[in-house]
Amino acid sequence: MGIKEELVLIKDIQKETILISQTIALLGWDQQTYMPRKGVTSRAEQTAYLNSLIHEKMISPELYSALTRLEKNKSRISNDEKLMVEKMLKRVKRARKIPAEFVKEMSIAITQAFTAWEKAHKNNDFSMFKPYLKKIIELKRKEANYIKLPGHIYNSLLDDFEEGMTVEKIKPVFDELKNKLIVIIKSIEASEEYKKQKNIYSKREFKKGKLMEIIKDILSRMGLTDDIMRFDLVEHPFTQAIGHNDIRITSAFRKNPFFFFFASIHEAGHGLYEKNLPEKDQYNILGQSVSLGLHESQSHFWEDRIAKGESFWEYYFPRFRKHFKIKDKKQFYKEINQVRGGKIRIEADEIHYCLHVILRLECEIGLIDGSISVDDIEKVWNEKTKEYIGEIPKNDNEGVLQDVHWSDGLVGYFPTYAIGVLYSSQIYEAMIKNNPRIESEISKGNLGKVAEWLKENIHKHGSKYTAEEIVKKATGKGLSCDAFISYLNKKYSKIYNL
Amino acid sequence: MGIKEELVLIKDIQKETILISQTIALLGWDQQTYMPRKGVTSRAEQTAYLNSLIHEKMISPELYSALTRLEKNKSRISNDEKLMVEKMLKRVKRARKIPAEFVKEMSIAITQAFTAWEKAHKNNDFSMFKPYLKKIIELKRKEANYIKLPGHIYNSLLDDFEEGMTVEKIKPVFDELKNKLIVIIKSIEASEEYKKQKNIYSKREFKKGKLMEIIKDILSRMGLTDDIMRFDLVEHPFTQAIGHNDIRITSAFRKNPFFFFFASIHEAGHGLYEKNLPEKDQYNILGQSVSLGLHESQSHFWEDRIAKGESFWEYYFPRFRKHFKIKDKKQFYKEINQVRGGKIRIEADEIHYCLHVILRLECEIGLIDGSISVDDIEKVWNEKTKEYIGEIPKNDNEGVLQDVHWSDGLVGYFPTYAIGVLYSSQIYEAMIKNNPRIESEISKGNLGKVAEWLKENIHKHGSKYTAEEIVKKATGKGLSCDAFISYLNKKYSKIYNL
Repeated sequence: MGIKEELVLIKDIQKETILISQTIALLGWDQQTYMPRKGVTSRAEQTAYLNSLIHEKMISPELYSALTRLEKNKSRISNDEKLMVEKMLKRVKRARKIPAEFVKEMSIAITQAFTAWEKAHKNNDFSMFKPYLKKIIELKRKEANYIKLPGHIYNSLLDDFEEGMTVEKIKPVFDELKNKLIVIIKSIEASEEYKKQKNIYSKREFKKGKLMEIIKDILSRMGLTDDIMRFDLVEHPFTQAIGHNDIRITSAFRKNPFFFFFASIHEAGHGLYEKNLPEKDQYNILGQSVSLGLHESQSHFWEDRIAKGESFWEYYFPRFRKHFKIKDKKQFYKEINQVRGGKIRIEADEIHYCLHVILRLECEIGLIDGSISVDDIEKVWNEKTKEYIGEIPKNDNEGVLQDVHWSDGLVGYFPTYAIGVLYSSQIYEAMIKNNPRIESEISKGNLGKVAEWLKENIHKHGSKYTAEEIVKKATGKGLSCDAFISYLNKKYSKIYNL
Repeated sequence: MGIKEELVLIKDIQKETILISQTIALLGWDQQTYMPRKGVTSRAEQTAYLNSLIHEKMISPELYSALTRLEKNKSRISNDEKLMVEKMLKRVKRARKIPAEFVKEMSIAITQAFTAWEKAHKNNDFSMFKPYLKKIIELKRKEANYIKLPGHIYNSLLDDFEEGMTVEKIKPVFDELKNKLIVIIKSIEASEEYKKQKNIYSKREFKKGKLMEIIKDILSRMGLTDDIMRFDLVEHPFTQAIGHNDIRITSAFRKNPFFFFFASIHEAGHGLYEKNLPEKDQYNILGQSVSLGLHESQSHFWEDRIAKGESFWEYYFPRFRKHFKIKDKKQFYKEINQVRGGKIRIEADEIHYCLHVILRLECEIGLIDGSISVDDIEKVWNEKTKEYIGEIPKNDNEGVLQDVHWSDGLVGYFPTYAIGVLYSSQIYEAMIKNNPRIESEISKGNLGKVAEWLKENIHKHGSKYTAEEIVKKATGKGLSCDAFISYLNKKYSKIYNL
């Protein structure tokens, strides 16, 4: 094979694996939206088989030899092709480092651990999950040792979700973040305003149809119109891109009416990122989303920076007032931004949220490098919760059993949530700096201006750069908690009269 | 490889291609139900790629050599395995006879012909479609010559939809059917009852929610419950099985309220067949539906034999009366069984319907064996319509342009519609003969008894026998129009006082 044929081959395989992934995404979306209950057995077979097909393609000798030959001849291919080869080769090498028996062992361990977690969660009893967690941690450590990236052993797991990010990089940022958040929380909790804060609107019942109408209006102003997007109700909200112009957003109604509202906008942030990825690269690696952290930055951007901001409500409050007969704009704004403790991550406000994530990251690092044993994890979890959040979980479901991630083999995933929060603040700060008039556009409901800026500065890059490089290009700075802390100080000193 | 390994290989490939087919079915279902409009470009890529994967697997040298070796050693494998090998080998040989360039040429021709048909249909102008139809016919003739089954050249196309069926077998049956139908229609049209028949209820508006409720009740009595089935509304009704316990039925509302009602039951007949296929063979060729004709027999069985029968309405008329304030049971029954001419196949009553199909079969046979040229097809179509239906189409959309099939490369498909009608009558007659009390069960709404009988006598065989063999086992007779004609005579002489 010559260079031309090798390029064709690696482009073909990228396209094939992307088409299979899109199909897997549809199988997953359908499973959580419309599939009849008993379809689950066939669905597991379909998904497992298509996943194995991708793996097979990724470790095929033809692909590997084409990539290594192209790498040796990189002076003869274009810059984009060079980048493609580099990124593909990294993935292929990673996949080839992991023995087939290990993949099988992990897949069985996950299936068992997930079932055990469900049972344990139902019985609120961590001891039922513990032996399975031990197995998962043992295997994840083994996996990290197969991959063996430089530096801390945890890097090999983290890199899979957040390419280029390392313990060495995030640890100091997260430590600083943790200390500063605790200071902010203490000063809020000491305020008069905090002591007298109350819940009025979050206990009301809002008409679902009207909420839906407003959400549809917001999504379409963001650029998510019905010709390229579906919006469905599910148990746990998620977003899937099935194709370039086929974005599936889902949301859910809970007791608190704000849950649906902000979860929908959060998911729309994910959806908009997928929609704006470069169309010309849709069937190669450069056109895909770059990392979970950058993805999460987009959902937090819309949920926390935009939809919980004052400008946004200048436009939308009159609509809420009209539909839901609410009058007190100040109370409403305070309530959607209310700071309150709480031991459950997914119910946390935006200040406590990152502390939950940091707690998990510290646990994961300890479990993987061996400084924390699974036998001690409950104790460590509870102590850290007391230290960072101020309360001790009353039971396992409020503590170490609350998240499904570990049972799914996802270790190295949690930190991307906080990375997303930090990036979203950095990006928002840069957007305002570049466009001093953009907040007044938001207050007129012109969300399209924001979407355009994000497309131009974040989305259009696909994965031509790492997430941190993209953020650096857009904001002048790599991962940092400065923007987030300064945003929190400004916003919450106003809300709590600090 | 030894026999054991070869068996594993052919079973693995069967399972893989079935899992891919199920995924393609979901892609198709989603496209017609929930996909956003602009998702269509990605969807075409996804579907085309998965189809090519199946083709690749089917023509792989490993499969072919395993199958031929197993065939040589068939004394050493079980009866089911022998059958599997035989059926797979037939398909593989068929696929391997067709050159890759031809598959490509055909696929391009179909894409172009379909677009041309849509345009022609919009403009009601056959001349816009004619050159594309010429290409399709030329290619289908070429395909038939690649396959070269014994007998008439058309057999090679027909066999793909209705395995084992030939022109030599169906031509005499269809000729007899045609002549007898024309006699029945003439005698109906000459009757007093026919001249004074009127439409009352079919012009009424029925509340959609209530119709849906009744349909859901019928489906669940048939055994199609919500845990294994979805029911959705679409443009053109269809049914897809996505997995053994994952049946997707769709229907549509049209101006005539009966359309929704009978289309839903028709589709449920397809769904029930899929649901009852043998679970243990779900991932090999023996567990799949055997032919389009037998599939269609199941939909016609429920739509025409059951839901347009008197016993059925003994149970359901009171519910209709209550919900829709209709009083005259006799008029109602006459209306749902009303015989009326009409040049459009899909709007035809059950007597005219088969004449539409026979007309198409005669055209197809002529086009493929060269006795009719595409240039003459419009003329031939109109003459036959005049002769069989009694009217001349006023324009192309009422005539040769009305069906989409040819533009989709489907030649040899039409006759399965009439085969299904004949089989459904044969099966119904046998069921009544075996179970004289079953009509009284139907009149009590016990549709489960019917479903059980069908499962035991038709569905459970999967494709262990040909469709005709299954019908013969259940009824004692191969394809024949006797049961259908005797059913029509009995039913319509009562309705029209003949």
